[in-house]
Amino acid sequence: MIDEKLNQAVHILNERGIDMWLTFVRETSSTPDPVLDLILGAHVVWPSAFILTGGGEKIAVVGSLDMQNVRDHADYEVVGYVDSIKPALLKLLKRLDPQKIVINFSTNDVTADGMTHGMYLLLMSYLKGTPYADRIESSEAVISALRGRKSGTEIEHIRGAIRETLKLFDAVTEHVRPGMSEFDVADFIRQKMEEKNLEPAWDADQCPAVFTGPDSAGAHATPTGRLIEPGHIMNIDFGVRWNGYVSDLQRTWYFLRQGEIVPPEAVENGFRVIRDAIRKAAGFLKPGVEGWAVDEVARTHITDAGYAEYPHALGHQVGRKAHDGSTLLCPKWERYGDLPHSKVEAGQVFTLEPRLTVPGHGVATIEEIVVVTETGCEFLSEPQEEIIMIGPGT
Amino acid sequence: MIDEKLNQAVHILNERGIDMWLTFVRETSSTPDPVLDLILGAHVVWPSAFILTGGGEKIAVVGSLDMQNVRDHADYEVVGYVDSIKPALLKLLKRLDPQKIVINFSTNDVTADGMTHGMYLLLMSYLKGTPYADRIESSEAVISALRGRKSGTEIEHIRGAIRETLKLFDAVTEHVRPGMSEFDVADFIRQKMEEKNLEPAWDADQCPAVFTGPDSAGAHATPTGRLIEPGHIMNIDFGVRWNGYVSDLQRTWYFLRQGEIVPPEAVENGFRVIRDAIRKAAGFLKPGVEGWAVDEVARTHITDAGYAEYPHALGHQVGRKAHDGSTLLCPKWERYGDLPHSKVEAGQVFTLEPRLTVPGHGVATIEEIVVVTETGCEFLSEPQEEIIMIGPGT
Repeated sequence: MIDEKLNQAVHILNERGIDMWLTFVRETSSTPDPVLDLILGAHVVWPSAFILTGGGEKIAVVGSLDMQNVRDHADYEVVGYVDSIKPALLKLLKRLDPQKIVINFSTNDVTADGMTHGMYLLLMSYLKGTPYADRIESSEAVISALRGRKSGTEIEHIRGAIRETLKLFDAVTEHVRPGMSEFDVADFIRQKMEEKNLEPAWDADQCPAVFTGPDSAGAHATPTGRLIEPGHIMNIDFGVRWNGYVSDLQRTWYFLRQGEIVPPEAVENGFRVIRDAIRKAAGFLKPGVEGWAVDEVARTHITDAGYAEYPHALGHQVGRKAHDGSTLLCPKWERYGDLPHSKVEAGQVFTLEPRLTVPGHGVATIEEIVVVTETGCEFLSEPQEEIIMIGPGT
Repeated sequence: MIDEKLNQAVHILNERGIDMWLTFVRETSSTPDPVLDLILGAHVVWPSAFILTGGGEKIAVVGSLDMQNVRDHADYEVVGYVDSIKPALLKLLKRLDPQKIVINFSTNDVTADGMTHGMYLLLMSYLKGTPYADRIESSEAVISALRGRKSGTEIEHIRGAIRETLKLFDAVTEHVRPGMSEFDVADFIRQKMEEKNLEPAWDADQCPAVFTGPDSAGAHATPTGRLIEPGHIMNIDFGVRWNGYVSDLQRTWYFLRQGEIVPPEAVENGFRVIRDAIRKAAGFLKPGVEGWAVDEVARTHITDAGYAEYPHALGHQVGRKAHDGSTLLCPKWERYGDLPHSKVEAGQVFTLEPRLTVPGHGVATIEEIVVVTETGCEFLSEPQEEIIMIGPGT
């Protein structure tokens, strides 16, 4: 997989007229660069430079103790050093004489922003007085293409992660009852994961994230002792890792009160608005559209129906990470930088995850996963069409 | 533990006349800042600022969806935002009006260098046109003191990790025989770890790291199918996590050949030189000495004995991470930046881990762990005094 990605990277460099991509990192167990998952698949300790050129050269300049480990993981020509990376790096630059060097930082894209500021200062101190200091740019576009364009194999791994996640949601439906706490539901899922030897797609303490009722934490929080009551909407945000690729999905349940045989109209309506917002956005999503425009389709559907807008993006990419960076289906908010204006490409895999609050009941939210095709998009997850109803129990 | 560390941090700010420490991060599951282990103990998704002042104020400016999670983990006043962190952050700076702001980057110290270059650019773009842009410095000294000075509780956790590691080394001695591979030995340790529910101190694929014979990878590499033969020196580099704190230890074994009852003199001598280099360095280690001087004691002992010098530092700090950053017992090599000149403080916990090659047999290396006291240092690991001999088997 790494060698496949390295070759894809060389292709992308040529496509974009870039003659060198340099990734500069150190102690990646402490401060990992997300791109190393794609171009190395291992950690290094000492300051290390991974260099790809448009001509197809793949060179790693690493500390002597890291050499064997790098050789074991990817097909680089490995150059070692003991006391300083500087001479070997400068010698290499002089030989290759790149006119443009893209390096691993980005204000927009977390997955392309793995270089620490200290490492940036170090690199620039090495390049001082050379012609290369003025040839530095961000590798954001290269990483975005490399991470975004999923191969058929990558899509199959994501499908596997989705399949396992949806099975666990079904198990929750069988098991969950009023009186259980968010903790209880999360523990049930964790136990099933352990039985199946599945790893969570993100931090275990928030994966699964379980939210019940009108006073829940909202999102990105750990499950609490809050008890599920009849009349609650519950939602779960959850994903698993499958052959190195992940899912990230949400489903919504409603707990019937005594005498209810369907949810109150307010709950039904909230759910339908979310479901239809996803349908509309998926109908609009295709190569060439800008991310903000897809977000706006869902956002407007929700606000037109009289609900407050969701305080986040409609969707993010999914791949080796649950938040896989780069092109985002997000509003034009400052915190998203230029990402709202990046264009959707075929092969990208996105979540679609709007939310709204149904007062007195909880948060209705669905998260589906779609892959962008040449002409539109295709659901990788079987979409939730109806709110899942749980009876009032004994 | 987090609240204890936050209060210690306020104390350190006052000690150093710093009125604000600002830690600026985002998507810390992808690009973690190592200092968050000490000041938050959780992850955040959106751009987030953690601010401590000399006056004892503890403020977190975080995305609305991260607010509850931050509240659940540490005692910050939490300020939320939806579309941009900039207005809330600037308002806060204006109110607190710091004369010096230290932020999370460092060319020297990985554990103080958690801010990505993209985040640095974002922060500086926010501060443009304010008086604060010119008041930015590195928080390296603050983080170094906060991470380095271990409390009694922290030392006890490290002792626990050491105890479990040494027990597993004893189990290896009982189990290992010529004809096993490095893989086999690593698998045996992993199985024991699973039985005891222990986590590795660093990446599982290199923890344990097992090296046997004259042609082994050296260090920082995954175990291979290389078979242990009589006449080999084997060493293992290994540690476990215990209540959030880790060990990092190495031991050396020798496999007797048919007819041998002790190792050849070359092996014995190599081992003794390493053991005595550690003894001498430990005798020299005390508060106020510079890191390079401690390294030099061990390095000179080894080169005076006619061996090549080891291609790394004598020792690093250990704590929540195996490589716990800051003051290092290292030579004055460029790649170590200014760290060789940082002064040892009481409460710091160091490894001592010189190595040398015995031609034709393998690498002799011992790694011990010591804590710096007011007057010297104390071994936390029971030192290896003799090479462990394994018989030639049946």
